[in-house]
Formats: sequence, structure tokens, C-alpha cells
Amino acid sequence: MLLIMAEKIILDCDPGHDDAIALLLAHGNPEIELLGVTTVMGNQTIEKVTRNALAIAQVAGITDVPFARGAHRPLVRQIEVAASIHGESGLDGPVLPDPTIELDARHAVDFIIDTVMAHEPHTITLVPTGALTNIALAVRKEPRIAERVKQVVLMGGGVNVGNWSATSEFNIVIDPEAAHIVFNECWPLTMVGLDLTHEALATDEVAASIAAVGTGPARFVGELLEFFGETYRDAQGFDHPPVHDPCAVAFVIDPTVMQVIRVPLDVELTGTLTLGMTVADFRAPAPVDCTTQVARNLDHPKFWGMVVDALEHIGDPQL
Amino acid sequence: MLLIMAEKIILDCDPGHDDAIALLLAHGNPEIELLGVTTVMGNQTIEKVTRNALAIAQVAGITDVPFARGAHRPLVRQIEVAASIHGESGLDGPVLPDPTIELDARHAVDFIIDTVMAHEPHTITLVPTGALTNIALAVRKEPRIAERVKQVVLMGGGVNVGNWSATSEFNIVIDPEAAHIVFNECWPLTMVGLDLTHEALATDEVAASIAAVGTGPARFVGELLEFFGETYRDAQGFDHPPVHDPCAVAFVIDPTVMQVIRVPLDVELTGTLTLGMTVADFRAPAPVDCTTQVARNLDHPKFWGMVVDALEHIGDPQL
Amino acid sequence: MLLIMAEKIILDCDPGHDDAIALLLAHGNPEIELLGVTTVMGNQTIEKVTRNALAIAQVAGITDVPFARGAHRPLVRQIEVAASIHGESGLDGPVLPDPTIELDARHAVDFIIDTVMAHEPHTITLVPTGALTNIALAVRKEPRIAERVKQVVLMGGGVNVGNWSATSEFNIVIDPEAAHIVFNECWPLTMVGLDLTHEALATDEVAASIAAVGTGPARFVGELLEFFGETYRDAQGFDHPPVHDPCAVAFVIDPTVMQVIRVPLDVELTGTLTLGMTVADFRAPAPVDCTTQVARNLDHPKFWGMVVDALEHIGDPQL
Amino acid sequence: MLLIMAEKIILDCDPGHDDAIALLLAHGNPEIELLGVTTVMGNQTIEKVTRNALAIAQVAGITDVPFARGAHRPLVRQIEVAASIHGESGLDGPVLPDPTIELDARHAVDFIIDTVMAHEPHTITLVPTGALTNIALAVRKEPRIAERVKQVVLMGGGVNVGNWSATSEFNIVIDPEAAHIVFNECWPLTMVGLDLTHEALATDEVAASIAAVGTGPARFVGELLEFFGETYRDAQGFDHPPVHDPCAVAFVIDPTVMQVIRVPLDVELTGTLTLGMTVADFRAPAPVDCTTQVARNLDHPKFWGMVVDALEHIGDPQL
Repeated sequence: MLLIMAEKIILDCDPGHDDAIALLLAHGNPEIELLGVTTVMGNQTIEKVTRNALAIAQVAGITDVPFARGAHRPLVRQIEVAASIHGESGLDGPVLPDPTIELDARHAVDFIIDTVMAHEPHTITLVPTGALTNIALAVRKEPRIAERVKQVVLMGGGVNVGNWSATSEFNIVIDPEAAHIVFNECWPLTMVGLDLTHEALATDEVAASIAAVGTGPARFVGELLEFFGETYRDAQGFDHPPVHDPCAVAFVIDPTVMQVIRVPLDVELTGTLTLGMTVADFRAPAPVDCTTQVARNLDHPKFWGMVVDALEHIGDPQL
Repeated sequence: MLLIMAEKIILDCDPGHDDAIALLLAHGNPEIELLGVTTVMGNQTIEKVTRNALAIAQVAGITDVPFARGAHRPLVRQIEVAASIHGESGLDGPVLPDPTIELDARHAVDFIIDTVMAHEPHTITLVPTGALTNIALAVRKEPRIAERVKQVVLMGGGVNVGNWSATSEFNIVIDPEAAHIVFNECWPLTMVGLDLTHEALATDEVAASIAAVGTGPARFVGELLEFFGETYRDAQGFDHPPVHDPCAVAFVIDPTVMQVIRVPLDVELTGTLTLGMTVADFRAPAPVDCTTQVARNLDHPKFWGMVVDALEHIGDPQL
Repeated sequence: MLLIMAEKIILDCDPGHDDAIALLLAHGNPEIELLGVTTVMGNQTIEKVTRNALAIAQVAGITDVPFARGAHRPLVRQIEVAASIHGESGLDGPVLPDPTIELDARHAVDFIIDTVMAHEPHTITLVPTGALTNIALAVRKEPRIAERVKQVVLMGGGVNVGNWSATSEFNIVIDPEAAHIVFNECWPLTMVGLDLTHEALATDEVAASIAAVGTGPARFVGELLEFFGETYRDAQGFDHPPVHDPCAVAFVIDPTVMQVIRVPLDVELTGTLTLGMTVADFRAPAPVDCTTQVARNLDHPKFWGMVVDALEHIGDPQL
Repeated sequence: MLLIMAEKIILDCDPGHDDAIALLLAHGNPEIELLGVTTVMGNQTIEKVTRNALAIAQVAGITDVPFARGAHRPLVRQIEVAASIHGESGLDGPVLPDPTIELDARHAVDFIIDTVMAHEPHTITLVPTGALTNIALAVRKEPRIAERVKQVVLMGGGVNVGNWSATSEFNIVIDPEAAHIVFNECWPLTMVGLDLTHEALATDEVAASIAAVGTGPARFVGELLEFFGETYRDAQGFDHPPVHDPCAVAFVIDPTVMQVIRVPLDVELTGTLTLGMTVADFRAPAPVDCTTQVARNLDHPKFWGMVVDALEHIGDPQL
């Protein structure tokens, strides 16, 4: 008998169109055990992204997973949202249902700490797909989680590419101090950054295969991709939108969906042109105690296959 | 009948010789209601300063006040302690009793949040006398405390004077990001900085009047001042040690013990020479919405009179 | 027979109302031998301040002193002028004569280098009263002048006071890299900054004693002070204008007109709030190799007496 | 009849092994008219690199080209040399002849200014292969050269690669302020950076074809490459040394030897991790007024063919 252990994750997100798809992938894939969803301001305010997270749960029929609200602003900098990409609601496009699920009473920071400390060491993967504010606050409040989690697999940053400045990616640059904290902790950290996610394009073929699923959640994803595609075309000149956040979930499901390379990573905090840049030092082989790695070279069919499979698995919970 | 309401405070400290005296002043003065003591790394590690705080409680017979342990390191920077001033224990000089008091189960951050949220709005004064890490974490985790506390009265910073660099004071410079967070919140904030505390010298006359109290706690203070005086003489060339932290408590007891001037304050985060400087802008009258002020011109006899009175009030709890 | 050697200076300036008075003081005082005047952008563009310098020469009958034009912009930063203080011409107020004097063919940088190298070592004092761009360029092009000049006595900076930001003075902050170069060279450097010059107020009594001289140049100064007084009242809330630049010249004439204190000085280049701050480290006695000092405590009557005497000495060259 | 105009260049260098080869290429290629050579500290002190430049001239029989000495240190930062790569002399490996050529009396800055102003507009290409200190000083002293030169083609920087830090290249990071000045002027600027020059490897085949020339200068180059290969192997793990500086000369000779892409470029001055990074913004097509471009994709055979041809052309001047 073969016993496959599902990977336990906490998804820390700011839905957000691609966060929504990340959540659906995490929920619909049987190799993931979704212990909880925490929210953080970013793509929109904490009120909006939290409401969006609950609405996505409603759409996908997620009923048994705790949702906890997190940080309302970055550690040091003023809040800056991405309405140009995600619209005024943070999830413009589809009509969102009114969520009936109740939030967990705990703050996201405490939910993360409690969950990590309540499980066996090295069993939980943190998957942040927004600003790293919650994760940073959690590890500063309870330093023991740094050694207790299995790993951090985050969407954010980029080695040779930025989107919110010439060198920097949105999730990192809106709270660079939080990112600095997370990148400098001792946990194994995989950065699924723009180098990788700019390959995760939702092509017409992808859209068609999602439409072919034919369920409510699949139509919901279709509407998300339609809006996301338009804003990415207008704001950043993409022909098809890069769907960043589910890539981090996909790596947890199956690391062979991309390549990773070990390299020291750090976050620039004082640069005039480079604030929030995730700096990788490729000048020499990574030292033996290097705990960070970056992802490259997405297996595009396998990745989108995972998303479609997850939608198939979710089915049509409203029926 | 005259009803004087004692001022409710939470003392957030890193004992530390002057923190110890601040705690004795807060405990011994009847116009202060000490709701709790929280600790933060700074003068020494969190383990050492927490142990010191409990030992001071033992010395002073503080039995009904919760003590909660807080942050073990600064938000972003590496930890840096002040062993050159406070010794290896953080409270070198007197023999410290083994504390029998138990710590509150909560993290300092939660203790602060719970306590502030449980009391009426605008009734609690936060009195940080160490790095501002706990206060920063608390207000980022629970933003409502910023409007709910009465005020923050902190020891730290300096307008035209530094001690840990040419421009910067220890409590601020060891966690400048935390200080930036605290100085930029909407609560009324009084900075009792080096401008003021370098006047709070423990002269021979002061030492004599403390010795004259003749109790165990007074002898304890005498031993603290002796060690503190030596290190300040050796490390910074002072004839008599400046006793910083009780000045913040003294301001809460009686604001007339010093002068304050309203002025916009902020904390420098990127300066090469000026990291952690508390920048005051005196070029124009403070704008009407300015919530910050700095203290100047200590009434030296009144201040030390408060300390002596508190020691008299504490008496000899070991007897 | 007593032989008094006049102090040889090069005045590097950006007239500018107070630069104009500095030039008149240098020209009219017999203890100064004015070897040349160099100009630098600052209060206005290099074209305007150079034209102003020549016009002042015309007013004061300066015919035998070379004038050389210098830097048109700061080393690294974009140019920023002080029209709010000095008006559109850089010398608003009086009607300016058309200058008939010709500029020296050399760039200010070469004029400074040639002059310093042509004279005996340690005989020439550089007196910059504007941005330090020319001086910085000169010492980078010809490093030997750093050991050959007698000293640099500059108007700029401030220890506990700024005017162009909370911490920084105009001459320094508009070209902080140049200032950093000049402050870190090995020459003896006296900073006559805002601490001192905010005491050099042109009170009504001062204005009256200048008016009493009754000459063309004195009327010219009166008109300058009238305009300068208005802009300082409007822009910075001064009752009477601080007349900065002649203070540096006055120190060369007679150092007893102010006090100086030796202290390490440096210039902040990366601060967000403190860019261009002149940082003094007063935490310990100045080390023996300290080459910098700051001026304090102006002898107000003696200073303005020098200015009046210089105007008397200049007389009425137009007659 | 076809009249090919040779490209007039000033080579501003800090020899340095690859600078030496750049100089030989510029001298030996008939499509280059070498108007002068200026030196700047960098790979070694100004004394050493100037001596080296003259020694190279001796080896190559360069007799009719003026050599002018330039800056002895960076604008703002302390001097830092690359002895780990170029040895104590700056040109370790071959035995250097004692130069008999005399230096031009002018400073490099004045030589550059004079030469540019004396020629027709848009006829002179500046080719800096060291720190940009001389070029920065020249354009600040004489701003008209910015519009008068034809272009600047420099070796330095890198878009996605550093060598002196994770993000930064030696020539830029040792004087980032100078680089910032040069990159932000209005002249057309081509950055031949590490992206390109790390392809200019002196393979065994290259070494053999140089040896086959069989002249004194060719043997000299062989000895240079041998030493350079060793230090690059030891210090940076290269199998064969990247020969940076002649790439910039090669681009002037024949731009088809590499590809260029127009992109806005700037230099980071305040980054903690990224000081001296040359930041390219590839997020959108270059704006129409963009004057900067970066080089990529070297035609390796064509490039080394140019070097061999130049050596052939130089022949054996000692015979």
C-alpha cells in the first residue's frame, strides 16, 4: 500500500485574481492539505481582500478551512494598493457572492503561530502570495516558528526583472522591511518570482481548457482571467496575463513543475532605484549553509494542467 | 473629598539600571497605577532583561502586577546590546534575588493589546523605556490601540545629542524601524530624550538622599547607581550618571517636572551618519495636527524627590 | 614699525544678497587681500550670480581683482536655486549697474588651483559662501591644494539647525557630495554655519548705521537688506534677516568676532530626512588630528562694526 | 574612390591587463584615430596605471599620441584598487620597459575638454575603460562637451551581473557618483558591460592565434593573458579570463561585433546591497528621448579577429 502524505500549507494571500486561482488550486489539489487561509493587505485593502477570500471560498465550496484576517498595512511604509491591476474591489470581473463563512477570531499572525506550533516540526509549508507582513510579524512575535516550519514557498520578487519598479516586484516592494525579515530567517525559502511567473501566461489555449471544465468555479476563473488579461495588457503591455500566485502552490504540489537554483537572496532596503529588489548573488556557488533558492523555467503545460485538474476536482459546489 | 485618579500605565522596559529605577518609581508613586510590565531586548537579551525585571519586582515587593515577555530582537536589524553600560547581566552591581514571580502567559504584544482594548479609551499611557519593538508590533497587529491609548511617553532619542552615534540614542538606533512606526502613529507622543535625561544626573547629593532612606530597595538603587556611574564615567566621560528611564515615568506623574515643546518628530532610517536620529523640525511653529512633543529642562530636585518619595513609600518589603 | 600682513583670500560665492555684503566686506577691509572672486551656481544660475558679482564690483569700485566663473550645476544632484530668498535675479532689490569688468578667461576651478599653487604654501584662505562645487572640483583635479592652502573658512551647514530642510542648510544640501569632499579633506576647515549666522541679524539699528555712511555702496547695501528682510520674513518668519556670508569673511579678518569649537564634522549623503546635514560629533573631546571646527556666539556689534567700517573705507567710488 | 573616415577616440583607461589590450587594439586598428590616452586610478593607483600606460606605448611603438594623467581618487568614496586581479603593479605578468615617452603637461580633464572643444562637433568618441572620474570632472568643468562629443562608449556596469558585488561592476562601483554623472548626461552612451564582456573569453584558441602573430607586442599580450587568466581563475572562478576593455574599442570599430538594445540606464547611489548597480528599466519600450543602450551577444570570432589583426598591424616596433 502506498501512503501519500498531502502537504500541509497555510496560504497567506491578498486576493487578487491570481491569489484566487492559487486558492482554488490549493483547495482542489488532493496533494495539498489546506490548514488555513490568512489575508494581508496588498492588491487591495485588508477589508477588501478578506471579503474577496471569503467570496472565493463561497464560490469553491470551501467550508472547512479557517480564514483569518491579517495586517492592514505594511510595517514601515505607507499602504499602496494595485487597483490598476486588480480593480477597485481587488477582484474585479466576476460578480462576487456574499460570503456566509465566518472569519476565525484570531489575527492571522496568531493563526499562523498557533497552527505551526500545534503541528509536528517541519510539517507545515507557508505559502505567501502577497506582502510578507503577516509572516514577518509572526516570526518576530514567535521566533520558534522559523525552525519549526518545513519551508516558505513564496510568490514575490524577481532576479532580473521587476514590475512595480525597474528592479522590484509588487509584493516585495510594498513592504520591503517585512520581506527583508522573511528572506533573512533560517527557514528554507523558495522564491517563485517574476522570472518564473512571467512564463505562467494564461494563453487562449489555457483559457479554452479552463472553459471546457464547464463548472461555476471554472467560469469564475474565466472571468477573472478576462479582467486580469485586460489590465495586464493596458498597464504592462502583456499579450496574455502572467498568473503569478498559483505557481507557488504548484511548486509545493510538485517541485518538478519548475527548476530551482540555490543562491543567496536578500532584499534591498535603502536603494533609491532599487528599493525592494530581491538581490541574488550568483558570483560563486551557493555556500553550504545557503537556505534560499529561486525558481526558473516553468513547465507550462504541467502547471496549467494542475489548475484544470483542481477545477475538475472542485466540481460545481453550488449545484 | 478630592478624588485623584492614578494614571494607568504599562511600563515597557529592558532593565537595565535606569529601567530598574523607573520601575521602582512607577511602583512606589501613588499617582501611578501600574497595569503591567513588559520586557524587550535592548540593554541585554530578552532572557536577561526579563529575569532582571522579575528580580526587581522581588526586591521591591511587587506581587500583583503582571509581567510579560516581549521581543527577542529588533524588527529588521541584528540585535545589539549595551553590555558596556549595563554589564553582562544587564543589571550588574547588586546581587539579584532569584525571582519567584511567574511571567504572564501572554506575549508582551498581546498583553499590551488586551490591556488597552479592555480598558476605557484614552485611559492608558504606554511608557516605553527601551527599544520600541513591542509597541511597534502591537500597533501593527492591532491598529485600534493607536486611537485608544491616552498617550505614549517614551525614553529615547534626542534632538541635538546622541549617545550610540553622533546623532542617535541607543533605544532608537537599535530598532529604528520600530521607532519610525511608533513616532508616526496618531497617538500623542512625548519624547523624553537625551536633551532632558542628560540633566537627570545622580549626583553625590542624590546618592546620599537615597542612601538616607535606609531600606533594602534604597540600598539596591544605591548599588545600581554605583555601577552605572562607573560605566558612564568610563564609556562616555560623565562625572555622574544620567538616569534616563525614570524621567519618562516622572513626566506621567507630574508633567511640570520638565518642559515640553510641540514639534514634528520623525526617525531617520537610511542615513549613513544619522541612522536612528530623531529629527525635529523647529523651522516653523508646530502645525495644529502635530501630535509629538519633546521634553527639556528637568526640575532636578523635584525629579529626584519623586524617586526618594517612591522609595520611602515602598519601604522594606523583605522585612 | 608694525607690519600687519593682510590675509590673502579667494572668495567663492553665489551673489546673493549676503554674498554681496561679504564681497564688500572683503574688499573694504584692509586686513584682507582679495586675490580673486569665483562664482558658483546656487542662489541663482551661474549666469545670474556671475553677472551679479560683476555688478557688485562695479558698485564698489573693485577694478583690480580677477573674477572667474565656476560650476553651473551641482556634482550629482539637479540644480535648485533660492529664488524665494534672493528673487529672480539672485540680487533683487537694488537697480544693478551693467558691469564693464571682464571675466578672467579661466574657469573658477583653474583660477583657484593656479592661484593657490602660485603662492607660498599656507598663505591663502579659501572662503566659500555658496555651494562647495568649485572647491570640490578643484581639490579633485589638483589634490596638492589640500595641503597648500592655509585654511577653508566657509559659510554653510549648521549643527543643530537647518533652513532648507529640518536638518540641513542650503549651501550644503544643494551639493552634498561636494560638501562631503570639502569637509573630508585634510585642510583646516572652519564651518561658519547657521548656529552662528542666525545671530548676524540686520536689526533696525544696523540698518540705520549703514544708512548713516551715506555713500552709494551703503545705499546699495540698504536696498539689499530691505529686500532680504522681506523674503526672510515671508519665507522663514524672521523679524530681521540673518546676513550669513560676511560672517565667514569676518572670521578671517578677526577670529575673535566669534567663538569656535573643534569637533569632527562630516556631511550626510544618504539620509531621507537628513540629506546634507553637517554632522558634528560632540560625544567626546575632538581627537588630536581633528581639522574641523564650528563657529558659535557672534559678537554682533563687532561684526556689524566691521561691515560699516568696510563701507566707510570703500567710500563713494562713483563720484 | 571610397574614403573611410577613421573614428576619432580618446581612450580613458587604468591599465590594467584588459586596458592594455584595448590600447593595442585602438592603436593597431586603422579605423580608429587615437587622439589621446588619459589615465585614471582604478585597477591601481594613478601613478602605477599611468606608468603602465606609458610602458604599453613603449611596447607597441606608440610615439605620436599624447598621454595625460587624470584623477588620483574617486569623487566621493575612498580609493579601492583591484590588486587581486591585476597584481601589485596593475599590470603584473610581463616585464615592463621603462617608458621614455613624456606625459602631456595637461591634466586628463583639460586634455579631454581641450580636445573635444578643438574638434568639430560630434566627431569624437570617448572610450572610458576605467572609473568614470575623469569624464565626470570634465563634463562638470565644461558642460558643453556633453553636446559636442559624438558618443560615449564605456566598459563598465552590467545589467544582470556584477563582479565587485552581487549587482555591481568594479569600474562603476569604485566611483558611483562619477558614473551617475556620466550616465545622466545628454550624450549618446553605450554601456559595454559584464553582460557582454563575460563572453569575451580568452580561450586557448584565442591565446594560440595571438601567439601565432609572433611579435613582441603579441608575446606581451600573451603574458598579460596568462597572468590575467590565473587571477580570474583564483578570484572569480573563470576557466578563461573575460577581456573586458577592448570590447568597448571593438564596438567603435564595428558596431556589428555585438548587439545593442536601447534602454534607460541609471546608477544606484544609496543601495546597501546595490551601490553602483547600473539599473536598466526593461519594463516598457525605451522612450524616444532615451540616449542610453546596453551591449549584448558578442561575435566572439570577429572580436578576437580584430585583436589579432591589430597586433599584426602593429608588427614588431622594437626591431
